[in-house]
Amino acid sequence: MNSSEVKVKQSKKGEIGKVSPKIFEHKDKFVMTHGELSSLQITYETYGNLNKERTNAVLICHALTGDHHVAGIYEEEQRKGWWDHAVGPGKAIDTNEFFVICSNCLGACQGSTGPTSINPITGKPYGMSFPDLTIKDMVSVQKLLLDHLKVKSLYSVVGGSMGGMQALQWIVEFPNFVESAMIIAATPQHSAQTIAFNEVGRTSIKRDPNWNNGEYTSDRRPEAGLAIARMMAHITYLSDKVMAEKFGRELMISGDEKTEKNQFTVESYLHYQGLKFVDRFDANTYLKLTKALDRFDLVGEKGLDENLKNIRAKVMVVGFTSDWLYTPAQNRIIAESLQRISKNASYLEIEHDHGHDSFLLNSQDFLHLIKLFLKGVNSNENIEQEPKKLKHTNNRSIVKKEADLKVISDWVKKDEKVLDLGCGRGILLEHLRETKNVKGLGVDFDSQKAAACISRGVNVYQGDIRKALSMLSDNSFDWVVFSRMVEELPEPGQIILDALRVGRKVAVSFVNHGYWRNRLHFSKYGSRIKNDVYRENWQSSHPRNHLSIKEFESFCAAPNKLKKPFRLGRKVFHRGNWRSECKWIPNLRAGLAIYELVRD
Amino acid sequence: MNSSEVKVKQSKKGEIGKVSPKIFEHKDKFVMTHGELSSLQITYETYGNLNKERTNAVLICHALTGDHHVAGIYEEEQRKGWWDHAVGPGKAIDTNEFFVICSNCLGACQGSTGPTSINPITGKPYGMSFPDLTIKDMVSVQKLLLDHLKVKSLYSVVGGSMGGMQALQWIVEFPNFVESAMIIAATPQHSAQTIAFNEVGRTSIKRDPNWNNGEYTSDRRPEAGLAIARMMAHITYLSDKVMAEKFGRELMISGDEKTEKNQFTVESYLHYQGLKFVDRFDANTYLKLTKALDRFDLVGEKGLDENLKNIRAKVMVVGFTSDWLYTPAQNRIIAESLQRISKNASYLEIEHDHGHDSFLLNSQDFLHLIKLFLKGVNSNENIEQEPKKLKHTNNRSIVKKEADLKVISDWVKKDEKVLDLGCGRGILLEHLRETKNVKGLGVDFDSQKAAACISRGVNVYQGDIRKALSMLSDNSFDWVVFSRMVEELPEPGQIILDALRVGRKVAVSFVNHGYWRNRLHFSKYGSRIKNDVYRENWQSSHPRNHLSIKEFESFCAAPNKLKKPFRLGRKVFHRGNWRSECKWIPNLRAGLAIYELVRD
Repeated sequence: MNSSEVKVKQSKKGEIGKVSPKIFEHKDKFVMTHGELSSLQITYETYGNLNKERTNAVLICHALTGDHHVAGIYEEEQRKGWWDHAVGPGKAIDTNEFFVICSNCLGACQGSTGPTSINPITGKPYGMSFPDLTIKDMVSVQKLLLDHLKVKSLYSVVGGSMGGMQALQWIVEFPNFVESAMIIAATPQHSAQTIAFNEVGRTSIKRDPNWNNGEYTSDRRPEAGLAIARMMAHITYLSDKVMAEKFGRELMISGDEKTEKNQFTVESYLHYQGLKFVDRFDANTYLKLTKALDRFDLVGEKGLDENLKNIRAKVMVVGFTSDWLYTPAQNRIIAESLQRISKNASYLEIEHDHGHDSFLLNSQDFLHLIKLFLKGVNSNENIEQEPKKLKHTNNRSIVKKEADLKVISDWVKKDEKVLDLGCGRGILLEHLRETKNVKGLGVDFDSQKAAACISRGVNVYQGDIRKALSMLSDNSFDWVVFSRMVEELPEPGQIILDALRVGRKVAVSFVNHGYWRNRLHFSKYGSRIKNDVYRENWQSSHPRNHLSIKEFESFCAAPNKLKKPFRLGRKVFHRGNWRSECKWIPNLRAGLAIYELVRD
Repeated sequence: MNSSEVKVKQSKKGEIGKVSPKIFEHKDKFVMTHGELSSLQITYETYGNLNKERTNAVLICHALTGDHHVAGIYEEEQRKGWWDHAVGPGKAIDTNEFFVICSNCLGACQGSTGPTSINPITGKPYGMSFPDLTIKDMVSVQKLLLDHLKVKSLYSVVGGSMGGMQALQWIVEFPNFVESAMIIAATPQHSAQTIAFNEVGRTSIKRDPNWNNGEYTSDRRPEAGLAIARMMAHITYLSDKVMAEKFGRELMISGDEKTEKNQFTVESYLHYQGLKFVDRFDANTYLKLTKALDRFDLVGEKGLDENLKNIRAKVMVVGFTSDWLYTPAQNRIIAESLQRISKNASYLEIEHDHGHDSFLLNSQDFLHLIKLFLKGVNSNENIEQEPKKLKHTNNRSIVKKEADLKVISDWVKKDEKVLDLGCGRGILLEHLRETKNVKGLGVDFDSQKAAACISRGVNVYQGDIRKALSMLSDNSFDWVVFSRMVEELPEPGQIILDALRVGRKVAVSFVNHGYWRNRLHFSKYGSRIKNDVYRENWQSSHPRNHLSIKEFESFCAAPNKLKKPFRLGRKVFHRGNWRSECKWIPNLRAGLAIYELVRD
């Protein structure tokens, strides 16, 4: 994705500067899914100001070992927040516009009540007696905090990894409180493999003799076990590729007597990560939090569609290509379910090498996408973009670009639902939304184009057309549009039939290969024509499945051969200039054809 | 791959039955890479008989925790060998034909000298004082054993995982002793990620207080640490998918007091694997062997090409699609290097869901491939296959199938080297080998076709044409052949230019789209023609980049626009029946065109 592609007006850029954490104390009983606490405290930070309507709050949820220090700096330690590059004045999550909140989650060990806290009833640390934790508990406590802060509704809830699961739980739990959600590098449930990795980590803690069933003291902590758990988990946060680039097979320079002979740098790095971690984290907390992750399951017996059915937020799910912990496929499952049940959802995939940790890194494409999404939630006002309306124009290339879109948008009725396969930058769907209140979903493989859709507030599924169709339920759209797309598809007949399962009406537009100029040129010269429609010569072309009006109609005229019959509805032909209509001998005289197929 | 596709004559099928291990004692000093042993013993098994020439031996090398018990059964324990489905009378590695040997490797703990053995000098177990082990040491000891067994040369050395690395080391170390090698699910060097996983396992052993710097006793072994190492490693042996299928998120049925509440079955399974492992394996051995794996590096400073330059064996490298430990890409690296330096090598990729462990499983496609390769090493005698010669025939479809191949095979001279891109079942390359002693390499994406090449003894790289070209060095072939393949390529001009880097001569054959019947049909009906060349109607077609003689010549005639100029050499046109030659107005009259491009 080229981040210069879609520009967002920048508000004044700057840094948040010095920050310090605050504490919220809840002195009443708090009932958890598997137990209760007689009271609790939550440590949090905020940046920016709540507006008068109290509707501009953005909640950020942190990952497994993260904390509330998202942005700004702790002056004494010179420690910047973990997402400081994303949050601040003029940044992706703009604190000039939004009131940004992040709290250390319930059950963690960086200032919120968790296993290391003193149980007021016993006067001793909770340790393993801390109730079994769930993502739902974390979210419920965050809601208490937001109520305390007088937030009326969340403009957005944002989180990566465990934070993404919290964001997901938020929109399920408080559907009317949340306007939008960004679910990043997450999953609706842990796979067996992820549970397995966590269990290895937990076992290494529990088999550490110092663990002592969780009753360890600060001078005899199960540091070896916790370090091993972290070392292993750390591998799953990185991609094979980035480890190869960072470390390869480099050896440590020996000499230092602490360094084992012929140690690989990657080994030394992992040991360092393990050591660093035990300084700042607690073993029982690690056990409780990883179990909460394993337990999280929005699929369950009812299935994801059923569990998500009440959500109302606009959702963007983001996966990273190299993430093998919460894979793109696992992220897609969330978006696919939302799309299957006709929610307001997009899926985007960011090309990034760094594995699961990509979401923490300073990727311009990703930050830009966050900004576009936050702007696109309610309006497009602040976004500079290409002319978004279908206008009458004399520019030949724009006429050609939009000729079929004009016809198709005339066919679509008010309030209908439209699936645009090969949606490009979302021009048709934006136009239909603005003129006919159409609910739409675009599908495009290209990440730049998908990002342009997000900037228009158009829902998009970045991925393969066939996959997108296969994930959608019967009759989930009124229209399925193929705007000059069928030429690129293998066995397009099957795909069109599948589109007629998903939508009752299908619009297909294509360049009529049977147009007389093509025929004349080919019969005279025995070579392809080159013009502003067929731009490339043979050596620079991609394979295409060109078709003519005659061929398309012959496909449509064989309903007895098709398992799912349909009838031809309206058809419109344009002449070679793609402007004036063409009424007779279209296969010879028309340059562009637009068909409506109807399943009765 | 459809295993019925290429049939191999079966010799009498049966089971090996009862076997028992034998012991080879080497009473002299053995010098290792990093130390020496005053004597050693190796436990091994053999199946089948050595022939009179002593040339039918197949050595099987086991993986990290495997042993010498490959096939047959230990009657007392009713324990079958770990590859019993692959080795036996009439099986993939046919003990009616081959004398099969497998030994427990040096440094292991199942009967060969290793850390658990008594050091004759001290009278105590070696433990961590056992010299640092290398794959090369293992191979050197296997050679001693083969000499002892009076094996004159190895017909084949076969191994998966660590066994694959041994097979690789074999062909490097003893180039004249080994006729062929199957390197399966292996790697030429551990990636940083793999080293990292191993280091976590080693750390969990070393941090176990019972490890005691390796000086543990049999009643106080570091079982917790070893079990954790195994649990983690076990995850890397399986794919995410197969774990999901096997376990999903199933919970254990509680009640059993040993079972933790709400334990997932995958957790319980891992614990069981850990427990089972400590019964049969030794912690110091695990440390030494994993270090030997990490240390193995055939890339090193010189690079893989240089390190493999003296090998003489015919090699088949096999990767499994779902293997994320030694990925298909890591396996391809081996084959690509061998092909770059013009060795006799193939790469095949087996579609299998079970991750790294796929190579141990009973996959018919894989077993069939092993059989085909072993048969194809020296001859094709025992293989039933399609007619392999290009013959004069009156069958219209065979004429069409082979028309261009006849021309191209006439152009190729004796002893030349030919790269056939889109080689299909290897008919051209087999024919050229038999008639002109041509050394060839085929490239095809299709696994069935690649297996057919193996059965013909034709080297094949299963994969993408562009990727195959990019891996090959300048001038590594005399000819690069595109037999009716360019139509399927995107931007074919670039690909042809790259082919002219790899070979000085390029043969391109294609169906002339400018043929008069196509023109006539198209100009009259405005639709594609359908005949035995263009078989599909639009709705069932795949995108194609059709071209005509005129278009091809216009590409060739613009050398000034091309960075790498070439000239047109010979050209042959066939008429519409693809039989008689066509001398004039070929773009109108020829159905098939075959060109020679030459870089001077």
